[in-house]
Amino acid sequence: MSTTLITGGLVVTAAEEMQADVLIEGGRVVAVVDRNAAVAQSLTADRVLDASGLYVIPGGVDAHTHMDFPFGGTFSSDDFASGTRAAAWGGTTTIVDFAVQTKGHALREGLDTWHAKADGQACVDYAFHMILSDVNEGTLREMDGLVEEGVTSFKMFMAYPGVFYSDDGQILRAMQRTAANGGLAMMHAENGIAIDVLVEQALAAGRTDPRHHGEVRKVLLEAEATHRAIQLARVAGSPLYVVHVSAQEAVAELATARGMDLPVFGETCPQYLYLSTDELAEPDFGGAKYVCSTPLRPAEHQAALWRALRTDDLQVVSTDHCPFCFTGQKDLGKGDFSKIPNGMPGVEHRMDLLHQAVVDGHITRRRWIDIACATPARMFGLYPKKGTLAPGADADIVLYDPHAEQTLSAQTHHMNVDYSAYEGKTLTGRVVTVLSRGETVIDRRTYTGRAGSGQYVPRGICQFLN
Amino acid sequence: MSTTLITGGLVVTAAEEMQADVLIEGGRVVAVVDRNAAVAQSLTADRVLDASGLYVIPGGVDAHTHMDFPFGGTFSSDDFASGTRAAAWGGTTTIVDFAVQTKGHALREGLDTWHAKADGQACVDYAFHMILSDVNEGTLREMDGLVEEGVTSFKMFMAYPGVFYSDDGQILRAMQRTAANGGLAMMHAENGIAIDVLVEQALAAGRTDPRHHGEVRKVLLEAEATHRAIQLARVAGSPLYVVHVSAQEAVAELATARGMDLPVFGETCPQYLYLSTDELAEPDFGGAKYVCSTPLRPAEHQAALWRALRTDDLQVVSTDHCPFCFTGQKDLGKGDFSKIPNGMPGVEHRMDLLHQAVVDGHITRRRWIDIACATPARMFGLYPKKGTLAPGADADIVLYDPHAEQTLSAQTHHMNVDYSAYEGKTLTGRVVTVLSRGETVIDRRTYTGRAGSGQYVPRGICQFLN
Amino acid sequence: MSTTLITGGLVVTAAEEMQADVLIEGGRVVAVVDRNAAVAQSLTADRVLDASGLYVIPGGVDAHTHMDFPFGGTFSSDDFASGTRAAAWGGTTTIVDFAVQTKGHALREGLDTWHAKADGQACVDYAFHMILSDVNEGTLREMDGLVEEGVTSFKMFMAYPGVFYSDDGQILRAMQRTAANGGLAMMHAENGIAIDVLVEQALAAGRTDPRHHGEVRKVLLEAEATHRAIQLARVAGSPLYVVHVSAQEAVAELATARGMDLPVFGETCPQYLYLSTDELAEPDFGGAKYVCSTPLRPAEHQAALWRALRTDDLQVVSTDHCPFCFTGQKDLGKGDFSKIPNGMPGVEHRMDLLHQAVVDGHITRRRWIDIACATPARMFGLYPKKGTLAPGADADIVLYDPHAEQTLSAQTHHMNVDYSAYEGKTLTGRVVTVLSRGETVIDRRTYTGRAGSGQYVPRGICQFLN
Amino acid sequence: MSTTLITGGLVVTAAEEMQADVLIEGGRVVAVVDRNAAVAQSLTADRVLDASGLYVIPGGVDAHTHMDFPFGGTFSSDDFASGTRAAAWGGTTTIVDFAVQTKGHALREGLDTWHAKADGQACVDYAFHMILSDVNEGTLREMDGLVEEGVTSFKMFMAYPGVFYSDDGQILRAMQRTAANGGLAMMHAENGIAIDVLVEQALAAGRTDPRHHGEVRKVLLEAEATHRAIQLARVAGSPLYVVHVSAQEAVAELATARGMDLPVFGETCPQYLYLSTDELAEPDFGGAKYVCSTPLRPAEHQAALWRALRTDDLQVVSTDHCPFCFTGQKDLGKGDFSKIPNGMPGVEHRMDLLHQAVVDGHITRRRWIDIACATPARMFGLYPKKGTLAPGADADIVLYDPHAEQTLSAQTHHMNVDYSAYEGKTLTGRVVTVLSRGETVIDRRTYTGRAGSGQYVPRGICQFLN
Repeated sequence: MSTTLITGGLVVTAAEEMQADVLIEGGRVVAVVDRNAAVAQSLTADRVLDASGLYVIPGGVDAHTHMDFPFGGTFSSDDFASGTRAAAWGGTTTIVDFAVQTKGHALREGLDTWHAKADGQACVDYAFHMILSDVNEGTLREMDGLVEEGVTSFKMFMAYPGVFYSDDGQILRAMQRTAANGGLAMMHAENGIAIDVLVEQALAAGRTDPRHHGEVRKVLLEAEATHRAIQLARVAGSPLYVVHVSAQEAVAELATARGMDLPVFGETCPQYLYLSTDELAEPDFGGAKYVCSTPLRPAEHQAALWRALRTDDLQVVSTDHCPFCFTGQKDLGKGDFSKIPNGMPGVEHRMDLLHQAVVDGHITRRRWIDIACATPARMFGLYPKKGTLAPGADADIVLYDPHAEQTLSAQTHHMNVDYSAYEGKTLTGRVVTVLSRGETVIDRRTYTGRAGSGQYVPRGICQFLN
Repeated sequence: MSTTLITGGLVVTAAEEMQADVLIEGGRVVAVVDRNAAVAQSLTADRVLDASGLYVIPGGVDAHTHMDFPFGGTFSSDDFASGTRAAAWGGTTTIVDFAVQTKGHALREGLDTWHAKADGQACVDYAFHMILSDVNEGTLREMDGLVEEGVTSFKMFMAYPGVFYSDDGQILRAMQRTAANGGLAMMHAENGIAIDVLVEQALAAGRTDPRHHGEVRKVLLEAEATHRAIQLARVAGSPLYVVHVSAQEAVAELATARGMDLPVFGETCPQYLYLSTDELAEPDFGGAKYVCSTPLRPAEHQAALWRALRTDDLQVVSTDHCPFCFTGQKDLGKGDFSKIPNGMPGVEHRMDLLHQAVVDGHITRRRWIDIACATPARMFGLYPKKGTLAPGADADIVLYDPHAEQTLSAQTHHMNVDYSAYEGKTLTGRVVTVLSRGETVIDRRTYTGRAGSGQYVPRGICQFLN
Repeated sequence: MSTTLITGGLVVTAAEEMQADVLIEGGRVVAVVDRNAAVAQSLTADRVLDASGLYVIPGGVDAHTHMDFPFGGTFSSDDFASGTRAAAWGGTTTIVDFAVQTKGHALREGLDTWHAKADGQACVDYAFHMILSDVNEGTLREMDGLVEEGVTSFKMFMAYPGVFYSDDGQILRAMQRTAANGGLAMMHAENGIAIDVLVEQALAAGRTDPRHHGEVRKVLLEAEATHRAIQLARVAGSPLYVVHVSAQEAVAELATARGMDLPVFGETCPQYLYLSTDELAEPDFGGAKYVCSTPLRPAEHQAALWRALRTDDLQVVSTDHCPFCFTGQKDLGKGDFSKIPNGMPGVEHRMDLLHQAVVDGHITRRRWIDIACATPARMFGLYPKKGTLAPGADADIVLYDPHAEQTLSAQTHHMNVDYSAYEGKTLTGRVVTVLSRGETVIDRRTYTGRAGSGQYVPRGICQFLN
Repeated sequence: MSTTLITGGLVVTAAEEMQADVLIEGGRVVAVVDRNAAVAQSLTADRVLDASGLYVIPGGVDAHTHMDFPFGGTFSSDDFASGTRAAAWGGTTTIVDFAVQTKGHALREGLDTWHAKADGQACVDYAFHMILSDVNEGTLREMDGLVEEGVTSFKMFMAYPGVFYSDDGQILRAMQRTAANGGLAMMHAENGIAIDVLVEQALAAGRTDPRHHGEVRKVLLEAEATHRAIQLARVAGSPLYVVHVSAQEAVAELATARGMDLPVFGETCPQYLYLSTDELAEPDFGGAKYVCSTPLRPAEHQAALWRALRTDDLQVVSTDHCPFCFTGQKDLGKGDFSKIPNGMPGVEHRMDLLHQAVVDGHITRRRWIDIACATPARMFGLYPKKGTLAPGADADIVLYDPHAEQTLSAQTHHMNVDYSAYEGKTLTGRVVTVLSRGETVIDRRTYTGRAGSGQYVPRGICQFLN
């Protein structure tokens, strides 16, 4: 069994910071050792990685990606090959992607499709959530089986009527099922029925530019749906995870629920922390690059999101990675913002953008690992294989240089998309080397991975429920 | 350097649960190792402790004890020798005791007195907070020096006028100082000025039994003082730690503050979680055993305290260990509850009572370690020496049998006090073996420690502030 | 012009209590006079009513009645003749009834039908709200016209999918219209989509008794819908009036909105103040008498409703009078609670039940008149004709004996329904004489009115909006 | 008995607006009459006042004035003669002034002094509150007698240590007394103990300008004291009226209390609604004109105060009239803001400034009368003699021209003070004629009153308590 020793770094987990060496055997961490101890002298390994001056951290867990995802008549531009390679470049070693049920078809069929998309393509590990597009008796029965086999979370949409939308009765039924089978209900919380009225009115009034996407998808309609999802979950007795929270009023609903000790969780994304309606208003259709739902909000919401990440009213930062090229995809919505495919690229930059938040003083170093690795792993039943760096864990490890500077750009990024949402933005901190179950996929900023080395990981149930 | 290997147990920290072996060298943890790994076979040690079937946890950190403490004309009945021995029996390997400034005297003088009380007596490690009885220009200057030398927290009292009481101006000044020097302001939050009116009225009306102690120290007057302390801390820009929170209305004030991301923290104690005004109403002066301040509350407050421990609106469980014998001390207050020395024994049972909460489903196993070990250590600048079990930490380790049953009783406890507040209560879980910096102080339920083996630990500043 | 002088009573309005005489000319109040003044001696009148020992109060305004209302395949058992006569007996001199749009038909058609039902039948004055069953482009246009002609409030249902239900988009559109035309949006706030799931599940599980009606229509689903209606109103910029609020959690949503100074209003009904799930659980299908929606709640909600009436978080008490006979109507739902016609009789007893609340100390005498007369009149644009007793107001006046005792019973009440929801309940206070625009309709407890003397009253817009 | 008829005006009370004539006999209102009614033709009077185009409103009740008040080594510059004359000019016909207990002396002595100050001097009616400077057994006993004789409210100070300050124990005792005797506890809610620390620090640091008065008297210290006063009142079971509320955080405390249906009330003053720290920062010591306590706040607090007046979280607007001349009094504090006498002139302009709020859309016309006349009268037991215009009420009546324009200035005002806080401010609306118990004190903007025509009015207890 091949062994690797990572020596000289500062090991940072969600809980600890240690000047320690890490020993890997056969793809798993087997020892964390005080490097000044006598026992450290006795350790040998086939390979030694020098981490002097670097952080040694668990690989990132991105719990919200959409590879090869059908939306608005096109597909997101990253597939599992390109998307997981970009993830690896950014220090993310596990993604949880959304398998999609097609309306009128079985969950199984959707899940099989997603397995086929990913099989042999990924260079880091992956797991699946299931999107429910059609809650009915058959679907409800299937959910139990999926939980058994490791697909333990089910996303529904209060937005997108006629496409992914579930009504409150369907939501309630699905939540009753997760309450019983241990699954986790995930929610896109926007009142899509009301929003569609405002969309129609905006278009009729000639307000067709991308920025109107943000104006019609109102803060109050995100907060309302968040509140409603929480109440339905209470009625059902189900846990709830709200995806891509962007409005401070929605955060307030989550905070209230958490103050009551309800099993309600919330995720935000780097775009909501760093971008705003200012970008959405970029001229010459440039705002289309930033069209996603929930939409970017006025900049004053950012402080509330950072605060919630500190107070644990938000627990996870995922990317909602769902890239569409500006040319050939985003431009489907020229003259009609409602036809712009919703989504932004991001899987590559999450770890770096959150490290920048450490540099900026928004969060601590340990909280960085918590929201980016440990909590998503626990939330989605991947712990202790993923999300931490401790004996027994998969050796998904990132050597991170906290002092390196980098400038984000479509010229240099590895995602398959023709623009960067952060073009020209300079960050402090950069991934140096990445191990996936002990294998080097990024070696001192050279890609050494291969499609297919990433494995499917069946998941257990949410570990915040007891 | 002597080495010890703890093998076969489940290592539980605030963050992780691992089937792992722990290697100790020279009083410190140096490695945590997957016991199924090849490297585990190569580990040798002078001594091997078999932890099969046991938890291997960090030693407890009790951040609130009063050994040999003067109150109401007497002294608490445990000194550092007996008190730390009892702590060890209960799996607590660090206490933070309160050095007392005598009115009109320097802080230094009080601190020297406490060093003298502890020196050569303790069998586990200890540190000091400082009680400010007399905030003035001299005191304020001394505070800076104390922070420098490792006494980094300062307790004030909004109760006990004429004794420990500080007025709002003194509190504000002291908080301005902690805001500047990195110290942590600690507060006994009860409106003592108002309470003393109610005490006088109760006694005048012949309501002299112990239960009236609880009735006059009203919930609203704890909540009011908690609110006031928070606002004064906001004005000063200081962090605040509220001791022995017992009322749900006080918890609500803390929750509001924490929702605003203020550096406000709260501690409760096992007596508030398990006992109530029912005990305080025991006949034949029996209630005197349960007289402490803040007082025991009606049982319905317990649910709010448990919930707050889960939601992190309370972060620490300490004991406020301050025992007085029923015969000869508590009976000073026969016929006048206001003369009953305030305080209860508890240092021995905190870890067990909180493990019982795991058994009862109030908290998770990891949260048990968090509130009893990790967070108090971080709160009071003892981490990573104390509070966790990781390479580099002091080898303060408890082997804990989660299935053993025990019955609490004054007959069998090791505290120097003639009654138990939990007489006859049966618990699941018991300490088996305790190491203090690698030395065995409890060995399979035999005391093997010695007075003087415990060391004074200077502390850093609160680690929740950045 | 005929004149009447009411002398010797205590005039009570929402604002004043005066020992004063009231002079009526031609159906209107023309003077309120200190009876000890010289000028009082000079007053003459065709008729003098002696009100010694009595209250002289404005006639009640019941803003929520359903006469001859189609529901569940039957019609409410009071028509405008019997219903307004019962109202008069109970001191109510104005009702605002709900005209119903039939799905697929114009508002106008529904309104014409209601005019036909009432024309020549009523013995006290009446006005109409409009129920929107089908919000569409045509309906929206019609709303403006209705506001112009005096039908200034529009009720929608978040309950009853397939019958009266409007979806959030329809609600938003209608609220945008009221925001523009000065109308008032009224809402039945229950999440009917979710409730119907629970109804189906209850029936499938054999839970068919009336009490399950209360169990499936959950408190959280009333509170959720209340919250949602408020947010939609905020998005639209519309005022909102929530009908028949029964749950304290719904009250909390209203209180929050009002604390923000939003134009959000709430009504409760006597049945929620006096009855509870205890009645709904009456054996032998007896609970069917109490089936209405929102449903009766556990008794502990009553205190919250009373409190909200005192704090003005609820502003109006109406009856939601919608009687169905126990025999022949309620029994349609034997074996299936969902088929029980929803509604209860009440128009006769509102003033008395609220006077009992004065006797019981829940509210003051002035607040009684406020919530039963003045505020409903202002809310629905009837002031100062209705709701007060001042020069210029219609002489709708009740002489009320605050000391008389009465026992409620189906044997003695005047509503056309075979049971009383308050059978055997004894109240202190009783109507003696009632004037409608100066004409006596109840004369010392003899009915002297006639069908057709009541007039239709076009309404202005809500007077709480400026 | 002399009679007066006011004809042609719009009568506005807190509850009604009526085109009605008002008949006065012997100093009291005896009839309100529809002027188009037949009976109106028969009315005769000794004198007829033409109110065409004018409002006919109740005279203002200013519940917070300090005439000839000792503060900081000087006395407020208006005595009862000049102060009540200015009040009359401004449409205020009743003041409630604060009699002051001198420390170490009896309440009676203070009250006698105030009677002597007012006797034969006032031209409009007046009543007294009592300031408690020294709560002790004797004082507590005296309180009962004062309530009996019509001094039913007792003000305490949480500010001004060493002068008016009461500690929490004294406050609690006094509140226990008001709870028992029906009195109303009034509170100056600022944490004076903490503020004095900040004052000392500011002066020591050379921050001596008037604006530092506002900076040291922090918003949080007003809110804290407000919260504390509420909790003490809850413990005592006493009603509470908080004077001169200026900070939105203090309003929030009141709103929370009122949401709980506690008998807690709040007053603000025109200076907090119209002025801000901008004025306090006027150069060349000009800010001294605006030094009062609680201090003026940053302008953004104004919106919260207006909102609270609309939502009834604040119920009364008084003036806290306490003028000191800029030259010879305010300048005592040159070089030391803490020596500037605290107080501002205002008794003359309250009715006008609040009418301006009607013009500006902050409040309705009826709410204007409510907060300026009706509610203060009810709050302090003066209703129905004062505060309304109804048969039986004192004929304290103002004819008010809602369209007249006026410019405020020290050149033209009638208060005995050498500056105006609103110099040059233009208002819409002006008093035309003022009656005090039927006697004309202002006759078409000519002063016709006389010192001594104003009477002392013993008060009943607060009418919001039942």
